[in-house]
Amino acid sequence: MSYPPNPAILADRFNTLRYDLDQDAVILLNRAKYPLQTEFVTCETVEDVALAVETMIVQGGPPLAYAAGLGLALAEPTEPDYRAAADRLLSTRPTADDLHHIIPAALERALAALTAGSDPKNAILDYANGEIERGNRVSQMCGQNAADLLEDGDRVLTHCIAGAALCWMLWIAKHQGKTIHLIPTETRPYLQGARLTAQSAVEMGIDCTLITDGMPAHLMSQGMVDKFICAADRVTLDGHITNKVGTLQIAIAAQYHGVPFYVLGYDGPDPHTESADGIEIEWRDGREVLYLAGQRTAVEGVNALYPAFDITPPHLISGIVTDRGVFAAHLVRGYWK
Amino acid sequence: MSYPPNPAILADRFNTLRYDLDQDAVILLNRAKYPLQTEFVTCETVEDVALAVETMIVQGGPPLAYAAGLGLALAEPTEPDYRAAADRLLSTRPTADDLHHIIPAALERALAALTAGSDPKNAILDYANGEIERGNRVSQMCGQNAADLLEDGDRVLTHCIAGAALCWMLWIAKHQGKTIHLIPTETRPYLQGARLTAQSAVEMGIDCTLITDGMPAHLMSQGMVDKFICAADRVTLDGHITNKVGTLQIAIAAQYHGVPFYVLGYDGPDPHTESADGIEIEWRDGREVLYLAGQRTAVEGVNALYPAFDITPPHLISGIVTDRGVFAAHLVRGYWK
Repeated sequence: MSYPPNPAILADRFNTLRYDLDQDAVILLNRAKYPLQTEFVTCETVEDVALAVETMIVQGGPPLAYAAGLGLALAEPTEPDYRAAADRLLSTRPTADDLHHIIPAALERALAALTAGSDPKNAILDYANGEIERGNRVSQMCGQNAADLLEDGDRVLTHCIAGAALCWMLWIAKHQGKTIHLIPTETRPYLQGARLTAQSAVEMGIDCTLITDGMPAHLMSQGMVDKFICAADRVTLDGHITNKVGTLQIAIAAQYHGVPFYVLGYDGPDPHTESADGIEIEWRDGREVLYLAGQRTAVEGVNALYPAFDITPPHLISGIVTDRGVFAAHLVRGYWK
Repeated sequence: MSYPPNPAILADRFNTLRYDLDQDAVILLNRAKYPLQTEFVTCETVEDVALAVETMIVQGGPPLAYAAGLGLALAEPTEPDYRAAADRLLSTRPTADDLHHIIPAALERALAALTAGSDPKNAILDYANGEIERGNRVSQMCGQNAADLLEDGDRVLTHCIAGAALCWMLWIAKHQGKTIHLIPTETRPYLQGARLTAQSAVEMGIDCTLITDGMPAHLMSQGMVDKFICAADRVTLDGHITNKVGTLQIAIAAQYHGVPFYVLGYDGPDPHTESADGIEIEWRDGREVLYLAGQRTAVEGVNALYPAFDITPPHLISGIVTDRGVFAAHLVRGYWK
């Protein structure tokens, strides 16, 4: 089926990240500020891109992986430089799997081009741009499969930003004639829900009601949530998911209240991660919790913790939605069969 | 047992609210700003006090009730004026029970004084100040009983501000030779955890590590929380508690992970509230969720919800700690026997 173009900026990754051949630079929408401010950042070196990933100028498993993949093309075209650049880019963030697929694959293509005497930069960009195109198709298919799970009138709770697949889910559901009410958590400390998810809903004309991260269970207890749907930074072969911290406690509350919890799993489980103990949870600088948009929100004299992700086990998950269909969490390994 | 004076400002209610006879005014620490700013607000009329309660210049079940009780003394000394003032003050916030005890009792004393030809203002202030003194004693006894539940090294998660009893629990535990690590949630949208709870910990020299409202379950899953302890704005005779929204989902996560959940129940269940259906949950203006400390944090075009409280059932509660001892939640009615 085909639908009108999706007006949400985040529905097409090329809207927010691309390699500019004229400037020889990676151009990134600053997601740490968007949409309160719309600012594009020009990264002229591998280090610029690595810092952009680390400081969440680009965030979300696939987008940050695409940015890093394009960034590899900024390295000097020698084998040692490509290897060092790949190591630097891989070191930025440990939890999502996409980065750890795209960088090794892009490096392999660069080194093969060097050996063959062809242009390694072109090889990297062809590969990375192809991955972005593939990711866009995966997002739309995943969104289509998720839209098919929704019913007219559903009040859908979400956490953080579930990315392009969420945009497609909402857009396709709308064109299926379903009225969906989106309830994003604001998602402290970075407020991805209040900014990115809410903005995407506004762009698509989807009714959107924001809540704080403490309110999901209460809304469930009042019968005000029909489904909980979020993304995953990594899905394991045995059906665990890791996603923005806060997902686990909403998933526990959803099971307690009998609310279905679906995960937008994009292109399926990471074939290299068997279970939860294979996932490294990133601890970010705790000071990020003490501030909001540059303003100090906590008293002096306290510490803070910022685990960026948590892990939700398969028995709390009602289904993992992928581009190839919906899998029971315990059976998601079947994606690769 | 006696302990050194508690250095936490919030441990003694007279530090933060009092009736000034010279100015004929109720003086309130502005808890919406403290401790990022220390500002005392002078309320010269009943309406001033009512607005201070509504805008959370004074918050917390007992403190706002004390402020309102003192505020009744600002009415003109006639029966119709006292009745109108009591109605206005009772209308401010529906959920906590203390307000709904103190205002009718203060009104009764004022009317009795009018009938007897004695000074109704004195009658109100004697009663309200007596209640504040009683509340201070209750807080210290409740804190003592809670301190006895703590073990050396405990990492205690808390939500919102659990008030004077939390301060006494921590202070007494410290003087029992126990090292306690406090983990407050920041508690959006008002950040009572990042401000009031954290500040109280700092004042008492208690180690304090702040987290966002989305992190409790993850910390529990990592074995980083030994106990969850918060207060209650109302305890019902059958053992439900209502407290700042977010409590319910932490309580569900605590049970899921086997972490004990204790409630600081001060002077026990409300004898007039049999069960949860007798509690009115206050819905505050949703726009409060779209801002933080006056700064817009959400995109334009979205709505928001702000249920101020949620209700946690007794089967999720490990014990309700009162000035008369610790009760199993289902048996808390026994406080009155």
